[in-house]
Amino acid sequence: MIVALAGGVGAARFLQGLVRVVEPGDITAIVNTGDDIELHGLYISPDVDIVLYTLAGIVDEQKGWGIKGDTFYCLEMLGRYGLETWFKLGDKDLATHIYRTMLLRAGYTLSQATEAIRKALGVEVRVIPMSDQPVRTIIITDKGPMHFQEYLVKRGARDAVLGVRFEGVEAAEPAPGVLEAIEGAEGIIICPSNPIVSIGTILALRGVREALREVEAPIVAISPIVGGAPVKGPADKLMRGLGIEVSAYGVASLYKDFLDYIIIDEVDRGLRERIEQELSIRVVVANTLMKTLEDKVRLAKLAVGLIRG
Amino acid sequence: MIVALAGGVGAARFLQGLVRVVEPGDITAIVNTGDDIELHGLYISPDVDIVLYTLAGIVDEQKGWGIKGDTFYCLEMLGRYGLETWFKLGDKDLATHIYRTMLLRAGYTLSQATEAIRKALGVEVRVIPMSDQPVRTIIITDKGPMHFQEYLVKRGARDAVLGVRFEGVEAAEPAPGVLEAIEGAEGIIICPSNPIVSIGTILALRGVREALREVEAPIVAISPIVGGAPVKGPADKLMRGLGIEVSAYGVASLYKDFLDYIIIDEVDRGLRERIEQELSIRVVVANTLMKTLEDKVRLAKLAVGLIRG
Repeated sequence: MIVALAGGVGAARFLQGLVRVVEPGDITAIVNTGDDIELHGLYISPDVDIVLYTLAGIVDEQKGWGIKGDTFYCLEMLGRYGLETWFKLGDKDLATHIYRTMLLRAGYTLSQATEAIRKALGVEVRVIPMSDQPVRTIIITDKGPMHFQEYLVKRGARDAVLGVRFEGVEAAEPAPGVLEAIEGAEGIIICPSNPIVSIGTILALRGVREALREVEAPIVAISPIVGGAPVKGPADKLMRGLGIEVSAYGVASLYKDFLDYIIIDEVDRGLRERIEQELSIRVVVANTLMKTLEDKVRLAKLAVGLIRG
Repeated sequence: MIVALAGGVGAARFLQGLVRVVEPGDITAIVNTGDDIELHGLYISPDVDIVLYTLAGIVDEQKGWGIKGDTFYCLEMLGRYGLETWFKLGDKDLATHIYRTMLLRAGYTLSQATEAIRKALGVEVRVIPMSDQPVRTIIITDKGPMHFQEYLVKRGARDAVLGVRFEGVEAAEPAPGVLEAIEGAEGIIICPSNPIVSIGTILALRGVREALREVEAPIVAISPIVGGAPVKGPADKLMRGLGIEVSAYGVASLYKDFLDYIIIDEVDRGLRERIEQELSIRVVVANTLMKTLEDKVRLAKLAVGLIRG
């Protein structure tokens, strides 16, 4: 089993390559749920949905999230009822949230509900939400604390970041199968996802970081920071807000207690020596931009090659 | 106040005329909720929605229910998740059910939730669901008992009707304002709705039939049965199944303990004598088909004329 720790868009794109290099049934993706949000009484799991939609081949490739060709008629009407419409819920996308919410209210755990959605979408990769208990990523800003989606989507990441808090993480357990997957893995890939609010939430769960430290299987990360900026999303603002260098070095430093390899972009080759010498992590330099399917496959082959020696 | 007891399509069409004859703010519609159903975790109130959508001018006039021009993308996706799709939930229509369900889960009563929807849609008629407690119309058929929507929509009213049961009606109370509206009414109109499963459910609520018997204001019904058949819906099958004559006479007989006037169609003028003599209800013969807005206004004028003498 290859285990991938995953956030949303960056991870999903990498997994699109990985399923062409490793049998999809031999991959377990452990996905961040710190961004989950309840809106209009519906339980929404954005990163899980991005991963599932992408692997099912129905994602809106342009945006990286949502379902391709989706319409927004229900959202328009929800707006007429005075509900907030900043979170762009498409009509087909809503079916996922309606179905998930129905299952949760019927007593399913989040991982059981995710499993039902995965099967219905015909996704062969095992996709586990990181926890069945709620963990909420709260961004502490100069305008006060706010839910990650409010910070990112509603307010466009425009507020100064003072800190990050994972609400509920002390009480939460990794979902069934998470620790077992890590412990039994042939290798572990830290996807090119936000190291603070995507991978950081998974690592904050009880026992996950310890399991990664102890496991003997190789652990490979792909830096989501290229040339001092994230390929997508607000990782730079979050890292800067927490006093972390916005670079592949900064990313590696967050994983230094368990990481064996980090794949960094060619533009960052100057960081290789610092990372290797100061953090004792082996660096592989490659083109990490995933524009075409070929890019994704090449990057996945490189990561799997490091695991399989 | 003119009070109207209402089911779905027939009542909504009559109310379209009534609001052009009486100030909308001077009308209270008490609407059947026996057809309400929870599907995919969403609370759906079909008759209330038909009345609200019609009065808001957004109903699909052709079908008589749903929102005009609505699409069905969410429903298509719910089908992909293996959920039943026989109840045709449009994308915009779904917003109503999402909003209502959200309000109910937040502790609103059904009548408070209905009031919020009514205001958002700009409907001036006061619309009260008949009860805040669940009453479920169960049709007992040769294939077993089933929810009214299953009988009507899923199975196309093809099963032989052996009986009708209003589950929960003993424990239910009329919603706040229902009895007060009847007691204080200038006149009461029984809309041309199914006398068994639309008006019958309202009448089965504790105190409603008694209030109608006692009130001095005139009570006028419009027969939904024309020439031995309902204008729309399965009223004939239900009446026949219960051993009630499928005619304006049969309808009048169900209301005989409180009704002052019944408006019957010209094709049924032969029933006038029987109704007047056997049931002591005064009969007015008119064209009761509501095809155009003029038809609706004419019928409303006639009913209001009987009330106002």
